[in-house]
Amino acid sequence: MVGASPDLRQQLSQTPPLWPRTAGRDSPIRGVILIGGDIDAIAGLLVLRERQAFTIYAPGRLLDILAANPVFGVLDPAVVRRVEVRPMEPVACGCGLTLTLLPMPGKVPLYLESRNDVGPEAEPTYAALLRSGGRGMIVAPACADITGEVLEQLRQADVVLFDGTLFTDDEMIVAGLGKKTGRRMGHVSISGPDGTLARLADIPARRILLHINNSNPILLRDSPERRAVEAAGFEVAYDGMEIRL
Amino acid sequence: MVGASPDLRQQLSQTPPLWPRTAGRDSPIRGVILIGGDIDAIAGLLVLRERQAFTIYAPGRLLDILAANPVFGVLDPAVVRRVEVRPMEPVACGCGLTLTLLPMPGKVPLYLESRNDVGPEAEPTYAALLRSGGRGMIVAPACADITGEVLEQLRQADVVLFDGTLFTDDEMIVAGLGKKTGRRMGHVSISGPDGTLARLADIPARRILLHINNSNPILLRDSPERRAVEAAGFEVAYDGMEIRL
Repeated sequence: MVGASPDLRQQLSQTPPLWPRTAGRDSPIRGVILIGGDIDAIAGLLVLRERQAFTIYAPGRLLDILAANPVFGVLDPAVVRRVEVRPMEPVACGCGLTLTLLPMPGKVPLYLESRNDVGPEAEPTYAALLRSGGRGMIVAPACADITGEVLEQLRQADVVLFDGTLFTDDEMIVAGLGKKTGRRMGHVSISGPDGTLARLADIPARRILLHINNSNPILLRDSPERRAVEAAGFEVAYDGMEIRL
Repeated sequence: MVGASPDLRQQLSQTPPLWPRTAGRDSPIRGVILIGGDIDAIAGLLVLRERQAFTIYAPGRLLDILAANPVFGVLDPAVVRRVEVRPMEPVACGCGLTLTLLPMPGKVPLYLESRNDVGPEAEPTYAALLRSGGRGMIVAPACADITGEVLEQLRQADVVLFDGTLFTDDEMIVAGLGKKTGRRMGHVSISGPDGTLARLADIPARRILLHINNSNPILLRDSPERRAVEAAGFEVAYDGMEIRL
């Protein structure tokens, strides 16, 4: 609720909560959709372990990663369901929401990179298409290449949350933070002729950048890069952001 | 640094940092001591994965838990050393610090509890004794019983951080948060004739309660339980607390 307008706060305070508030511990989270196997995508599950019922929706490969790590056993199978989702096959996940996993261009195959440069990453990468009441939202935190096919997918959506990892492809190298370009990490950059601002200029959706690396200057409110992004009609995601479809 | 006094802040701003501040990403953490296998004791390792060099000190059983979970592979062995520590055998861990693991009374064996009631927990439980410049600090976040042997150990220390999980043994049950008493979870309570306030009344150390459950009323600054704890000469740990030996 960080950043919620006073109007929204008032509206919510008058609306009965969507979830039961009877227990001493409770969570509004009904489901978790996994679309990547990186630590930043899966480690958060470990803080949802207080015997709260919810469902994990994920492709088989990511469920295999959870199964291969006994620590995720803290999510008791009697309380937390794990549901396999196949790409392009819509799944109803309650509350009128339908989920479809969209394959996205991913990073170059692991075997082409030296073992020391990369962590365990799931391939391929997916985006999540969520539909509710005739409207659609796509969440795509990792996309290596905005192909014609990707653009076609994004045109279906009313809201697009898109890979905002890096502003420039060599950003990590220039900052001395790593040896890899963005594309090698599986992320298209925001700037440049093949970048997100240029390629997503014409899609009709509300466009929000997320999964922003801490080297990315758009995180600074007063940076020229932030101004460029906002001038191009993109928003920058923030903790506590709330999106209504 | 939350809660640091203005004096301390000024002092620190005039002191050269203890760690090199040359890299774009850096961390002051030189070592991590694991004394339990619970999620809240090990999951934090996953956020220390930005190729920062440090050493993990742990008993063999806990290193086995890390090894059995491939997600901890994000801590590249070329950068993050894992050092096995045997109970009661001091280990030098740099910066003039010596670590000794002290066995502590733990929870009742897993096989005596129904599978649904417990998560994966390591046994036995340990406390960490840290010595530096002739002074000693004991960190004991889990202790099921303050035996004479435990008291003898605690008397060695100038500072003791001790299990403050629950104020009363049936706290979780009364609050409807669980079915287990504190002792069944491996935690002595703060109150009561065998509790921490009574049993640690006479040890010479500075005494700080940590590992405080969110059902514990000492977290409320204006609660009678908080006043009782402070009146008995105990402090309540908080995020960002800094302790100088």
